[in-house]
Amino acid sequence: MSYKIAVVGATGLVGQEMLKILHERKLPIKELYAFASFRSEGSFVKFGEEKIKVEEARPEKIAKADFALLSIGEEISLEISPEVAKKGTIVIDNSNAFRMNPDVPLVVPEVNPEDLKEHKNIIANPNCSTIQMVVALYPLHKKFNLERIVVSTYQSVSGKGKDAVVELLDQTREFLNGNKIEPKVFPYPIAFNIIPQIDNFEENNYTREEMKMVRESRKIMHLPNLKISVTCVRIPVIRGHSESITATFSKDFTLEEVYNILNKAPGVKVLDSPQEKIYPYPLFCDGKDEVFVGRIRKDLFEENTLNFWVVADNIRKGAALNAVQILEEIIKGG
Amino acid sequence: MSYKIAVVGATGLVGQEMLKILHERKLPIKELYAFASFRSEGSFVKFGEEKIKVEEARPEKIAKADFALLSIGEEISLEISPEVAKKGTIVIDNSNAFRMNPDVPLVVPEVNPEDLKEHKNIIANPNCSTIQMVVALYPLHKKFNLERIVVSTYQSVSGKGKDAVVELLDQTREFLNGNKIEPKVFPYPIAFNIIPQIDNFEENNYTREEMKMVRESRKIMHLPNLKISVTCVRIPVIRGHSESITATFSKDFTLEEVYNILNKAPGVKVLDSPQEKIYPYPLFCDGKDEVFVGRIRKDLFEENTLNFWVVADNIRKGAALNAVQILEEIIKGG
Repeated sequence: MSYKIAVVGATGLVGQEMLKILHERKLPIKELYAFASFRSEGSFVKFGEEKIKVEEARPEKIAKADFALLSIGEEISLEISPEVAKKGTIVIDNSNAFRMNPDVPLVVPEVNPEDLKEHKNIIANPNCSTIQMVVALYPLHKKFNLERIVVSTYQSVSGKGKDAVVELLDQTREFLNGNKIEPKVFPYPIAFNIIPQIDNFEENNYTREEMKMVRESRKIMHLPNLKISVTCVRIPVIRGHSESITATFSKDFTLEEVYNILNKAPGVKVLDSPQEKIYPYPLFCDGKDEVFVGRIRKDLFEENTLNFWVVADNIRKGAALNAVQILEEIIKGG
Repeated sequence: MSYKIAVVGATGLVGQEMLKILHERKLPIKELYAFASFRSEGSFVKFGEEKIKVEEARPEKIAKADFALLSIGEEISLEISPEVAKKGTIVIDNSNAFRMNPDVPLVVPEVNPEDLKEHKNIIANPNCSTIQMVVALYPLHKKFNLERIVVSTYQSVSGKGKDAVVELLDQTREFLNGNKIEPKVFPYPIAFNIIPQIDNFEENNYTREEMKMVRESRKIMHLPNLKISVTCVRIPVIRGHSESITATFSKDFTLEEVYNILNKAPGVKVLDSPQEKIYPYPLFCDGKDEVFVGRIRKDLFEENTLNFWVVADNIRKGAALNAVQILEEIIKGG
């Protein structure tokens, strides 16, 4: 079997990475379509050595495909996805549009592939920060029963797209040249600065990004009562999100058990020899597929509690790769 | 009354800031001495419009002063401080050398000024990350009784001194020019990267910086059983440390009470109107004296728990200013 696959939002950071990963992983593709906004119509994107002509993203055209991987704005996805899905195309949507919809599976293939059985032609790809957290936490949860997480994030600018990467680089140059910085994409300068706000604030004064991590983790891990304390912070890194996680379980554990579990966990790579300065950091994880875990240590005072550090490429595992893995999972399941 | 004051380590980032703050705050100075390593002997440092000649830091010369503010390496301080103190000079030491010594008060003037009564001519200035955390936490503790903290830090390179600032700027230029980066001060590139290691690792695989925050917070707040989970991370910011703090108290509280307490707390400035994008960030706090607190919110799930965000200038309140405030406190107490 081979399939007609559409990448929608093909000119964006995540869309281009989807094309790259579809090619790398040799998906059984019969035909590949690239869609983007009308502004990109007629331009080309790369698929291996091939160049694919970009078409304007319109539901009836996207519906030519068996599968559509979407990485477009939430509002546009809300319009396009149901129409495409209605015509029989399976949509894997990277936006926030459908993630908390009870009819839509929200899937990290290492964690809840079984949720794919119930889909109605739309599957949601979780938020980048959520994905890497649950890939590391879920195998530990299965053994020790997760009760509470406290997480602080260190999120790179690529999570906000191409313009944000350009803004960081431009501002950095301006700063080094002693020029004044005019923020456009971010509310304040991001060069040599950090900003404790990602996405807008909800009424409770948590940001939408923080609430996504709360709601999505609970849905993906099927833990509706999980306690989560989360603070999301933007940092001047181009690619790779990091997370400082303190997790409390109902059962006690040894560090040896934790290493054993994480060493065998799908999609996880342990990098943890602190005395040799081995731990994950964003530059190292850039372009890699795994969720990297290090700085693993028992809490000094709180029972059944583990502190650790998780880094992953937010454009790959945090977005494009996870979407392609969902596609592979569906193909595999027939 | 006026005093003979020595700044030891006068050519470093903290030493220069000490001189600046002594001048700004119009300390009653009869004579001012600047000391540094023999390499800087004969050079000059600025004190307001004056230029002060730098002398080599030798105990018998430093002991001319009534007070000596030290910002030098831990090992040198271990040698010099006791000798200087023996000769009757009161030493305020910014290094880690004496902080956990039971005979040495470890003081944040907003928190435990009464500990200054017991000194034996050496007083320790706490770690930068510890200072800003306890300034924000202690007033809340007094009212609600602090039980546990989970803190993740976002620490600027200036905490590691001048060479680290130069390294960040140099590496950033090299990166933008597409050149290879050779780390020297930090174990990995710090330009467009973050490193989850500050100082060396202890045997328990926590870093010394993390353990300093644990031990020092307990000593300063007189809370020997306080539970602390801490992860310290270096980020590509020049100046200003940030902290994401989750604090659990034994008593319940309202957000209104928290705002009332923090608005009146000495050394604290609340910046917290998230809907107007008002919260502290390092570039804003650079050069300012206060400990800035924002992103204040009740935990969504854990009882008696508060999440907040603390930013301060690590060279000022985190080091030089706190040392000068200790000096002022001693002078005031006679």
